[in-house]
Amino acid sequence: MILVLDPSIDEKKQNDICLKLQKRGFFARLVEQYGQLLVSIDGPGEKDFEREAAAWPGVNEVISGKNSYYLASRNAQRKNSLIRVGNGENAVTFGADQIVCIAGPCALETEESALSLAEKIKSSGLKIFRAMVFKPRSSPYSFQGLGRAGIPILRKIKDKTGLLLLTEVRDPLEAELVQDVADIIQVGTRNMSNFQLLKHLGQIKKPVLLKRGMGSSIEELLCAAEYLLAHGNPDVILCERGIRTFEQYTRFSF
Amino acid sequence: MILVLDPSIDEKKQNDICLKLQKRGFFARLVEQYGQLLVSIDGPGEKDFEREAAAWPGVNEVISGKNSYYLASRNAQRKNSLIRVGNGENAVTFGADQIVCIAGPCALETEESALSLAEKIKSSGLKIFRAMVFKPRSSPYSFQGLGRAGIPILRKIKDKTGLLLLTEVRDPLEAELVQDVADIIQVGTRNMSNFQLLKHLGQIKKPVLLKRGMGSSIEELLCAAEYLLAHGNPDVILCERGIRTFEQYTRFSF
Amino acid sequence: MILVLDPSIDEKKQNDICLKLQKRGFFARLVEQYGQLLVSIDGPGEKDFEREAAAWPGVNEVISGKNSYYLASRNAQRKNSLIRVGNGENAVTFGADQIVCIAGPCALETEESALSLAEKIKSSGLKIFRAMVFKPRSSPYSFQGLGRAGIPILRKIKDKTGLLLLTEVRDPLEAELVQDVADIIQVGTRNMSNFQLLKHLGQIKKPVLLKRGMGSSIEELLCAAEYLLAHGNPDVILCERGIRTFEQYTRFSF
Amino acid sequence: MILVLDPSIDEKKQNDICLKLQKRGFFARLVEQYGQLLVSIDGPGEKDFEREAAAWPGVNEVISGKNSYYLASRNAQRKNSLIRVGNGENAVTFGADQIVCIAGPCALETEESALSLAEKIKSSGLKIFRAMVFKPRSSPYSFQGLGRAGIPILRKIKDKTGLLLLTEVRDPLEAELVQDVADIIQVGTRNMSNFQLLKHLGQIKKPVLLKRGMGSSIEELLCAAEYLLAHGNPDVILCERGIRTFEQYTRFSF
Repeated sequence: MILVLDPSIDEKKQNDICLKLQKRGFFARLVEQYGQLLVSIDGPGEKDFEREAAAWPGVNEVISGKNSYYLASRNAQRKNSLIRVGNGENAVTFGADQIVCIAGPCALETEESALSLAEKIKSSGLKIFRAMVFKPRSSPYSFQGLGRAGIPILRKIKDKTGLLLLTEVRDPLEAELVQDVADIIQVGTRNMSNFQLLKHLGQIKKPVLLKRGMGSSIEELLCAAEYLLAHGNPDVILCERGIRTFEQYTRFSF
Repeated sequence: MILVLDPSIDEKKQNDICLKLQKRGFFARLVEQYGQLLVSIDGPGEKDFEREAAAWPGVNEVISGKNSYYLASRNAQRKNSLIRVGNGENAVTFGADQIVCIAGPCALETEESALSLAEKIKSSGLKIFRAMVFKPRSSPYSFQGLGRAGIPILRKIKDKTGLLLLTEVRDPLEAELVQDVADIIQVGTRNMSNFQLLKHLGQIKKPVLLKRGMGSSIEELLCAAEYLLAHGNPDVILCERGIRTFEQYTRFSF
Repeated sequence: MILVLDPSIDEKKQNDICLKLQKRGFFARLVEQYGQLLVSIDGPGEKDFEREAAAWPGVNEVISGKNSYYLASRNAQRKNSLIRVGNGENAVTFGADQIVCIAGPCALETEESALSLAEKIKSSGLKIFRAMVFKPRSSPYSFQGLGRAGIPILRKIKDKTGLLLLTEVRDPLEAELVQDVADIIQVGTRNMSNFQLLKHLGQIKKPVLLKRGMGSSIEELLCAAEYLLAHGNPDVILCERGIRTFEQYTRFSF
Repeated sequence: MILVLDPSIDEKKQNDICLKLQKRGFFARLVEQYGQLLVSIDGPGEKDFEREAAAWPGVNEVISGKNSYYLASRNAQRKNSLIRVGNGENAVTFGADQIVCIAGPCALETEESALSLAEKIKSSGLKIFRAMVFKPRSSPYSFQGLGRAGIPILRKIKDKTGLLLLTEVRDPLEAELVQDVADIIQVGTRNMSNFQLLKHLGQIKKPVLLKRGMGSSIEELLCAAEYLLAHGNPDVILCERGIRTFEQYTRFSF
């Protein structure tokens, strides 16, 4: 459950609300995002509490339900999100008028092949290079990426080409490892519902490109985005990459 | 890629093979499971290497392909797997003639309600109680479980009732936290493709109940099981819980 | 829209209701089934008319909505339907305690092969033989069945074996052609939504085995059954044969 | 099975081939379409015959398989199909550079509302009006269209506005009824696999707009088109209208 607080209430009043909630046995967490002030409430018995909370002073709205999202909806944010990546002349903005293209190999294999590809991408006018060193693979016997050993290669490519870099992570540890080199962190389709990872990435100061789970509804994609937003990261880029259907002529449908 | 080795070759020969692989730039890992001896090969260029490896002395078979599984198939294990949980008169065996029933609440909420339920389950003749303290939830605002605080409650219920316990984990840290109290660790449908978690659970000495991803094929379920097996855990219980389809009359189809 | 009438009203009153409806520009049709008396109403503007109709004397209930079914639901018929096929010692009842098995080739190819198969089916204790002479096939170049020429062969097999016969039709003309030889008429998955065929089969005095469309919901299957029931045929046997999903390991899911 | 004949062989030779086929117990039908000359072969045992037929003089190719299509593929027709509807300044061409829009009500309800809508459509610059008098509806109690009574209304709207007309049919009889008034005949999603209807429409001199079945694969859609083509109608317009998936946010996916 989430309480949307009046954003004008002072810190003392905010703390009072959190304290009251904790006394009732709830785990309460203050969330600030998009100029909104929320308290997320965690704990058994929250359902009965819904009506009472709606009457508390300082509470503007109560959002409940097992699939609800608030920050990812137009309720919290009327304007289109603009997510700026990079600085100066290399900067790219997602959500503005121009479509942003990202290109690169699926898995980083060798420095030579990746660098040569990156230079072609650069000269074609694109600004973001993608290459994975941590690959989630259906089979344990498929190539899982170069791992840590690939990070210095990613660094070299960035330095030589000046391209921005997107790369994927599969767990919080990997998110720490790529922090310095990545400009955008990707969560792949197989990890869209890996909520522990999403909570961790919520606390990182990097845009996250979140791919739709191949068996996930639009609503679940928005709820996954909400994990990132509610845990502190305002810079969420959604990637619609299709869902599984009976049609086998294309790999995914939209 | 995976090499199925002749199980009779001595340790020196095994090491020689691994060394040769590493010299060629592969990451090689020895896997022993079900009396089988495998080398899993990770690295770029493995495809070209396939034919060569098949001719090496001590190599019986080469398994490749991005979705392949070996240990989870009848190739590695002709007999049905028997997975024994618990000891003495409380022991339960999965895969034997008798169907095993597991019952309990979705999320553990309070000690009283869970204990009362566990006692009813006990007196009905079942032997395994399930209760979650770590819940993967679609929305960040839904109750995520009691967390660490729930573990002593699980302990009490076990002590009072003598029931075996199944509980879910969402990341490696949680797997460590429940190690002492859980008899079976559950991986939920949303984490079936969380391969980092599966690799970690492969190294734990506990049976794992692996639920099918709601958007995952049977082949992907078997590949997920292969992660557990190839990383060392022979005790994998598959849970078919249905897939998503256009039919909305039932929540899932089979 | 459908009006459920009080079954005790006399014929004059029934006619009055139909007449009143026709005067308002509706096409009205009296339906009697399962001891229920219904008027099905067809025509523009029926939506506004719903509330008014509910107040008419002799009208017990008004059923509306684009996917509604009434006769196929427990509202019309509390007891399980029992559908008796054949006479004497060869009679078979669908819906009773015993499961009914139907066996035979997909398409009838030659008299010899079909007869030999039918004799084996007979000697195994089954009572219903199926063989198709009219095959709906995805490609126009696949064998479409023997057509009319197959009907005398079906007759011979029946005479020699005493088995009951199920065969498929694709349009009203074929339904007439198999009338004398078939004991059950099958509507295949590709024709479940061929409502013109269903209307025609509603008027025939033969049980109909209706297969679920591979892309159809349970609700649509029941609506298709409703076409048969509302047009006069009480003997509908539903055949759940699975739906299409992303899973390719089995041809259909349930 | 289908034999692609050398288009230069004379009529006598064509007849000889058909005769030879009939003597072997096949039903053979000569198909001419797109300057191609085919013999479609129907009958048991055609599989064994495949290799033999390939060696016959005058036979260029043998197409087999239960889902095969030939005329609907680029094998038969290298150029894009251009389907011209109407004459003079009102003519519209499907398959050319310009996108064709068709607009109108789902079901024709009253002359007034339909005419007023048609006039707006006309003045907006569109050239094709659609309105259905025969509606396939999931429930027998939903409005099934005005039926025959709607045809004179369609005629009036055409005369007054000069618009071209698309309307749907559900069976061969309805196809005859709308012959004079319709410029394009629609086969709806529920009838895509109503092959008897498709065979009939193959013999009609009207373009057919064929909607994809909501549970049908692309390959099945092309096979349905093949029915129309192989039975003589070269003017098939495919309508992709989406398929059913687990996603409920939109009615259909692509």
